[in-house]
Amino acid sequence: MVDTLILTLTDKLAAAREAARVLATATTAQKNQALRSIADAVVNNAPRILAANQQDLARGRESGMAAGLQDRLRLDEERLASLSAAVLEIVALPDPIGDVVRGSSLENGLKLTQVRVPFGVVGAIYEARPNVTIDIAALTLKSGNAVVLRGGSAAENTNMVLVEVIRSALDAAGMPAGAVQTIDEFGREGAQQLMRARGFVDVLIPRGSADLINTVVAESTVPVIETGAGVVHVYLDESADLEQAVEIVHNSKVQRPSVCNALETLLVHESAAARLLPPVLARLRESGVTIHADQRTLAVFSDAIPATDDDWATEYMSLDLAVRVVDDLDEALEHIRQYSTHHTESIVTNDIARAERFLAEVDSAVVMVNASTRFTDGGEFGFGAEVGISTQKLHARGPMGLSELTSTKWVVRGSGQVRG
Amino acid sequence: MVDTLILTLTDKLAAAREAARVLATATTAQKNQALRSIADAVVNNAPRILAANQQDLARGRESGMAAGLQDRLRLDEERLASLSAAVLEIVALPDPIGDVVRGSSLENGLKLTQVRVPFGVVGAIYEARPNVTIDIAALTLKSGNAVVLRGGSAAENTNMVLVEVIRSALDAAGMPAGAVQTIDEFGREGAQQLMRARGFVDVLIPRGSADLINTVVAESTVPVIETGAGVVHVYLDESADLEQAVEIVHNSKVQRPSVCNALETLLVHESAAARLLPPVLARLRESGVTIHADQRTLAVFSDAIPATDDDWATEYMSLDLAVRVVDDLDEALEHIRQYSTHHTESIVTNDIARAERFLAEVDSAVVMVNASTRFTDGGEFGFGAEVGISTQKLHARGPMGLSELTSTKWVVRGSGQVRG
Repeated sequence: MVDTLILTLTDKLAAAREAARVLATATTAQKNQALRSIADAVVNNAPRILAANQQDLARGRESGMAAGLQDRLRLDEERLASLSAAVLEIVALPDPIGDVVRGSSLENGLKLTQVRVPFGVVGAIYEARPNVTIDIAALTLKSGNAVVLRGGSAAENTNMVLVEVIRSALDAAGMPAGAVQTIDEFGREGAQQLMRARGFVDVLIPRGSADLINTVVAESTVPVIETGAGVVHVYLDESADLEQAVEIVHNSKVQRPSVCNALETLLVHESAAARLLPPVLARLRESGVTIHADQRTLAVFSDAIPATDDDWATEYMSLDLAVRVVDDLDEALEHIRQYSTHHTESIVTNDIARAERFLAEVDSAVVMVNASTRFTDGGEFGFGAEVGISTQKLHARGPMGLSELTSTKWVVRGSGQVRG
Repeated sequence: MVDTLILTLTDKLAAAREAARVLATATTAQKNQALRSIADAVVNNAPRILAANQQDLARGRESGMAAGLQDRLRLDEERLASLSAAVLEIVALPDPIGDVVRGSSLENGLKLTQVRVPFGVVGAIYEARPNVTIDIAALTLKSGNAVVLRGGSAAENTNMVLVEVIRSALDAAGMPAGAVQTIDEFGREGAQQLMRARGFVDVLIPRGSADLINTVVAESTVPVIETGAGVVHVYLDESADLEQAVEIVHNSKVQRPSVCNALETLLVHESAAARLLPPVLARLRESGVTIHADQRTLAVFSDAIPATDDDWATEYMSLDLAVRVVDDLDEALEHIRQYSTHHTESIVTNDIARAERFLAEVDSAVVMVNASTRFTDGGEFGFGAEVGISTQKLHARGPMGLSELTSTKWVVRGSGQVRG
C-alpha cells in the first residue's frame, strides 16, 4: 500500500520535472497561449466546477464548517469570471524568463550574463480557498515552472475538477499537461512526502494560516519561501500630523482587517498621546474597532478594554487594535523588535531624523513613513500579480511578483579561454 | 548541564543579534576601520596564533591525521600575512549595504526603493581550515552581519585564538566584539543547536566536504545556502576546434584538480571521438591524469582503465577523469541531467545552434561555451571575494560575493497616502 503510494507520487513528481524541462524553453507566446486556454476553460467548464464545489460546500455544512470558511470555499459564476480575468491579467504581464540581471565582459574576453530562469518544479501547500489553485497554476506557468499542488481537503472535489480543467487546457494549447499536478488524493502523507522531496521539488510555497506555514517551515527539507503572519505596527511620533495620523491608522486597521498587512498594534509617543489618541481612536470606534489599551492609553481614552501581554503578540485579523503609549522612539523600536513579525511597520512623523532612524533600524520586509500599511501588496507595488508576501530574508522579502518565482543562471561565452 | 549549555549558547546568539543591530547601521568607513584593525591584529599576534596552531597540529599528528588535512590545518607566518592581505582586499571592495536594487514612484506619489540590508546573524559551519575563520569573519563584517562560527574540532585551539584576536581588534576599532562568536566549545551539540536556531540565526552557510554540507542541509531548520559539490562536465561537440578542445579540457582538469569547478567527466560526440580524443587524452596523460574510459573511448585511446557506472557520479577532486562517447547532443544532455550536480558545464563547439541549445537546456549554476570550467569563481567573475559557490536555486546561484550575503528591505516614503 505504502509502496504503491510512493511510486505514484514519485511518478507525478517525475512528470512535473519532465514538463518543467519543456516549460523552461517555451516562448512567452506559447505560455500566454496556454494561459488564455486556461482562462477560457475556467469559464466554459463552470457547470462542472460549480457542481464539484457544491459537493465540497455540502460536506462543509454537514461537518459544521464556520461561515467564513464556507465563504472562502464557495465559487460561483461571478467568482469564476473574475478568476478567469485574473489569468488574463497574468498574460499581460512581462515574462521574467530570460531577463538579464547583470553582465560584464572580462579582461580575457569572456562575456558573462546572469539570466533569469525558472526554478523548475514549485510545490504549493494551501488551504480551503480553491481560487489559489488557478492563481498559483497561472503564476507558475507564466514564470516557466511546473507546479505540484496540495490543496486543503475541504476543497478536494473542487480542486480535482479545476486541475482536470487546467490540464485539458494545457493539452489543447500544445503544452505538457504534466506541468500542473495535484497530490490531494494522497492526503496528509502526500503533503509530508512533498515536504521531503528535496532534489525533486525546487521550492515550496505554503499559503494559508500561520499554523500551516509554521508546519511547512519546520518539516520541509525542500527550500521554503515563507509567507508569514503580520503583527503590523504604526508608530505615531511626537511630531505626527493629526489628520495624517487619523487617516493612516484608520485605513491601516479598517480598510481590510482580515489580511496580513492590516494594522494590529498602535504605538504613540507619550507627549503626543493626549493630542492624537482621542481623535484617532474615536474614528476607529465609529468603524466598530475594539481598542485593547494599555494604562496610559486608558488615561486619555476610556472607551476601551485593558490590554493584556498577549495582545502585543496577537495578529487579530479582525476589528481589534492593541494600543500602547511609549516613552519615546527608543521604546517604540524596542517594542517592535520584541513583537513584530517583520512584515510591515510605519511611522507617522514630520521629523526627518526620526523618520530616517525608524527606516534604518526597523528590521522588517517593508518600512514606511507617513503611509498606510495596506500598501504592502504586490498589486500596489506595481508587480501586477502577487505570489504572496515573504517575511523571510532569503531569496525574496516583501511582496513577491513573477520574478520572485525565478532563479538565475550564469551564461559564459568564450572563444577558447583557459585559466592562467 | 544541558540547561547551562543552552543558556550560554543562547547568550552568545543574543549577543550576536545585539551586535548585528549596531553593524546594520554602521558606516562603510567604520566597518573598513574594523577590518584594517583585524588585518593588523592577525600579523601582530602571529606568535600566539602559531603556538595554538602547533598544538592542533601536534594533536592531529598523534591521532594520525592525513598529510593533506595537516597541510590545510597548518598556519605559518607567510599564510598569516596572506590572510591579512586578503582582509585588506575586502576593505577595498564596494560595500553592498544601502545599494538601491530597484525603485519607483507610484501614481499616488509614494516613493518605493528596494535597498540592500544585512541578513543580521550569519551562522558558519566549516571544517579543518582555520583560514575560513578569518575569511568568513571579514566577509560578514563588511556586509554588516554578525557571525556565529562553528569550526572543526581539529582546529579548535587555532580558532579559539583567532576569534579572540578578531574580537579584540573589533573592540579596539570601536565596534562590538559580539559581532564575532565561536561556539566550538559546545561541540557537536552546539552545532546541532545552531542548525535549529531559527529566528536567532538568519542564514547558515556550511563550508567543507559534501558530507558536512548534506548534514547541514538535512538537519537545519535555519535557511541554508548550499555550496555544493561539482561533478562538472565538458562536452566536445562534433564541430569542436581541436586546439580549443585540448586546451579547455586540460585546463579544466589539471590546473587545480582538488576544487569544485574542476572537470570530472568528459563527453564526446561519436563523430568527433577519433579526431579529438587521442590528442585531448594524450595531453592529459602527459600531466598524469588517469582516464576512466567507456568502451567507445577505449576503442580510440587504449591508455586508460575501463569506467564503471560509479565513475559517472564521482567527484574525483584528483587527477582522474571519466570519459564517455555519446551518440549526439541529446545523449550528452541526458547524461548531464542524470549525473550533474548542477555546478558548471561547458560545451566546446563551433555550431551556434548547438551552443544555444546547451546553454538553454543545461540546468546548472554556470553554463559555458568554449571556456574552461575553472572560470566559475567569484574572483574570476570580478566579485573580488568569494563566499562560496552556490548550487541551490534559492537566493544565490553560482559564485557568491558580498551582495549574496545581504537581504533587502522595501522603503516606502509617503505624505499621508491611504489605500482607496
